[in-house]
Amino acid sequence: MVGFLDTLVFLEQDNNESQDVDNLVSFEKDWDKNKVMLLSNQPHHLISNISYRAAKPKSEERDYKTKSFELAQVVRATCLEIDEPSSDSYLKDVLGKYTKKWLERTHHHLGATHDAGYPINSNFDYSVLGELNRFSINNVGDPFIEGGYGVQSRDFEIGVLDWFADLWEIKKDEYWGYITNGGSEGNLHGILVGREVFPEGILYTSKESHYSVFKAAFILRMKCIQIETLTSGEIDCNDLKKQLLQNKDKPAILNINIGTTVKGAIDNLDLAIQTLRDCGFSRDRFYIHCDGALSSIMLPFQDQVPRVTFKKSIDSISVSGHKFVGCPMPCGIQIARIEHMKELTNDHDYIATRDATITGSRNGHTPIFLWFALNRKGKQGIRTEVKQCLDNAEHLKERLKAMGASVMLNKASIIVVFERPPEKEFIKRWQLSCTGNIAHICVMPHVTSDKINEFVIELIEKRSTWYKDGGKQPPCVASDIGKENCVCPLHK
Amino acid sequence: MVGFLDTLVFLEQDNNESQDVDNLVSFEKDWDKNKVMLLSNQPHHLISNISYRAAKPKSEERDYKTKSFELAQVVRATCLEIDEPSSDSYLKDVLGKYTKKWLERTHHHLGATHDAGYPINSNFDYSVLGELNRFSINNVGDPFIEGGYGVQSRDFEIGVLDWFADLWEIKKDEYWGYITNGGSEGNLHGILVGREVFPEGILYTSKESHYSVFKAAFILRMKCIQIETLTSGEIDCNDLKKQLLQNKDKPAILNINIGTTVKGAIDNLDLAIQTLRDCGFSRDRFYIHCDGALSSIMLPFQDQVPRVTFKKSIDSISVSGHKFVGCPMPCGIQIARIEHMKELTNDHDYIATRDATITGSRNGHTPIFLWFALNRKGKQGIRTEVKQCLDNAEHLKERLKAMGASVMLNKASIIVVFERPPEKEFIKRWQLSCTGNIAHICVMPHVTSDKINEFVIELIEKRSTWYKDGGKQPPCVASDIGKENCVCPLHK
Repeated sequence: MVGFLDTLVFLEQDNNESQDVDNLVSFEKDWDKNKVMLLSNQPHHLISNISYRAAKPKSEERDYKTKSFELAQVVRATCLEIDEPSSDSYLKDVLGKYTKKWLERTHHHLGATHDAGYPINSNFDYSVLGELNRFSINNVGDPFIEGGYGVQSRDFEIGVLDWFADLWEIKKDEYWGYITNGGSEGNLHGILVGREVFPEGILYTSKESHYSVFKAAFILRMKCIQIETLTSGEIDCNDLKKQLLQNKDKPAILNINIGTTVKGAIDNLDLAIQTLRDCGFSRDRFYIHCDGALSSIMLPFQDQVPRVTFKKSIDSISVSGHKFVGCPMPCGIQIARIEHMKELTNDHDYIATRDATITGSRNGHTPIFLWFALNRKGKQGIRTEVKQCLDNAEHLKERLKAMGASVMLNKASIIVVFERPPEKEFIKRWQLSCTGNIAHICVMPHVTSDKINEFVIELIEKRSTWYKDGGKQPPCVASDIGKENCVCPLHK
Repeated sequence: MVGFLDTLVFLEQDNNESQDVDNLVSFEKDWDKNKVMLLSNQPHHLISNISYRAAKPKSEERDYKTKSFELAQVVRATCLEIDEPSSDSYLKDVLGKYTKKWLERTHHHLGATHDAGYPINSNFDYSVLGELNRFSINNVGDPFIEGGYGVQSRDFEIGVLDWFADLWEIKKDEYWGYITNGGSEGNLHGILVGREVFPEGILYTSKESHYSVFKAAFILRMKCIQIETLTSGEIDCNDLKKQLLQNKDKPAILNINIGTTVKGAIDNLDLAIQTLRDCGFSRDRFYIHCDGALSSIMLPFQDQVPRVTFKKSIDSISVSGHKFVGCPMPCGIQIARIEHMKELTNDHDYIATRDATITGSRNGHTPIFLWFALNRKGKQGIRTEVKQCLDNAEHLKERLKAMGASVMLNKASIIVVFERPPEKEFIKRWQLSCTGNIAHICVMPHVTSDKINEFVIELIEKRSTWYKDGGKQPPCVASDIGKENCVCPLHK
């Protein structure tokens, strides 16, 4: 049995605190087996072993039950068992079926930051890249040290790294870097380097940071202090100051978000550096890692926006490669000041061989895709795409405003934040990312103005149904995006 | 200037200990710029900031210089600068050039454990898999919880995980796992789970373990005790016992190698568990992670070999997917007892969302390749390949023995260890992995008997040149592979 709930109220097993887990949109329960399976509409939710009380669907009468459950295993129902040995026609059928599904999903997704369709002009002979899958390409170890394994693509990798080093204004012989498996690995690496520079350092990061930053602190066994945010989603430097002053005896490792996941907020780097200075942290007592996320590749192509550059007192930047540049599989670019790498490659007793990357074997395909995409687009092409995305985001914001919806769009950002639609099916259909009362659309290059119009027309129609009786009202989002952007009955 | 050296003697900057870094085969120096660039023939070497004395090439007169240098940046010379925007024909040319190079390198490599040629029968319409690169497939987060992003391949992923769970004898509802970016990430994850189960635990692992195990201890800030090995390369359980008894107050997290990197040695799991018991470690005071490496997928298809199974007191296994199964990019399979995942997903103050994987965004292509390969090969196909590899390894060992070379082949292993050839060019040409005085060949499915014969004939010819005068002698490898296997002048 799979059902949809409007609300699930959770009780943490240990501390009995109730928690509204808003992103859980479906569950499957089996009281007898003492098991409940939950389906989240957020990619990052893992639910395990907590007790809950559930409001029964379609009923005003609330029936609270408390059970604990195991790790949710919700997608096994459709899993593709290995039915070996298989005929070629069976394999082709399966791949064909999924290809069709992915094409359909690619058309509709608005929430995700992934550019699902790899941007290849149709006049290019695509088979050239398809051929790559014939090779096991592995850039095992350090990109700058040629390994014994011959089938590798370091030449492409360093080309890409140099391009980003140039973008963020650090000289070739002053940086070290590598192509990671994604932004999360980059954050883990950057914060690890920070830890090795300052083993006693404390990690500071805003509460709206990507969860991979907090996960890195957990993996790396570091003390982490969460900093409050402004309504925009930026780090609150007043709170940062307060926390720094309380921990003046320990060096600071600061994570700066260059575009938060939900609101696309860009932390004020200059103010953060000034805050560190004001609190008495000299350059040799802080390390700044920038979670480059989506915006660190976009800012250099915009005018009159804050600059993220190694000319400022920053130490590492990581950015996702599969998002704005485009790559069929997750990847990221990690750049750090080379002087810090000494710390990471110092002898640690039992490490005889040294490798400053997180993983050893490394994907040799992603550097080729990135190299290929950057070559084809060129800086001018990216500049054009960035402008188009910003224009489209502005357009979407205006359309949402015009239909009477609450909406916010941060400066220099392409993430449009608005009131969460009340219909699960609509959210699922457009693959909107939702958090609490807000939803967001990341206006990537694949989110064209046609797609925006299609979405807007459907939303206008739906809203007239959802809110027609004057009974149900759009949610208040003043605490999420500010009173000035909220047009709920109370604030309009 | 790039030159080859016979010997490089290194002085560690800090502790002044001299160290023979045998794997460095070339260097580029610029005395004026105070820089030296080094080229390693080992994939895992990262050299930075150490001082050295170098014996000048082609000269009996030794000229020792001591300089410190920065991280070696040796492959920049050939790196492919992004020359944007580029014409399609330029891009095609570059890819074509590299494809040719990779084909050539794929033919010769013997040392690497990567199956470079993706095993596709020529009668299969290859374009079906080539098409995958059109999609950005991302299994972001937990494999068992469907995310909001629609273009994903969890159905394939769980199919593959179930196949391995079945292989290692753990029930579907008793395991949790995911497809990683390679064996190193798997080791990091398995040891992280062990740490969360026993936060005060000490990691024990043999000194011949893969460096990713030591790196995991470093990343995870865990105490790690290195255990001595037998000549075979197996963990020495007498030493393990000694160390365990000295640390009885702390829980034990034991890494077991199911095939060491250099010698393919399989740690004696049963004896290790018995040793834990003998030292008073009850089941609730130890965690065993198995670095499945190459052999954990092979053992289940062999007769009269030790069994690696969750029916024994083990807690997690990780294995590389790109090695024996075959996949164009690095990947791995990670399986752990589901009960331990509670520890990993427990609330850690600042982690609001939870994700038990190391990275967040995850490659959605690798599960499809693995699923595809397993379907096509089937268990019977793998059994046949395993037998063929074992036979070929035995054949290679006999041929090496017959030519008068020192050689060792562990039971149930496909890694043939033998005396290191004295010619760098020969090593490079065959992409042999070398450590000290030994070289090894990993007889993977692509190392056919034809390729072995080609190699053996060339080696016989070369040996007659290298050792013709009776002046130069093959190296003594008694300390590496035992007196009984060494046929150097002293031991033969």
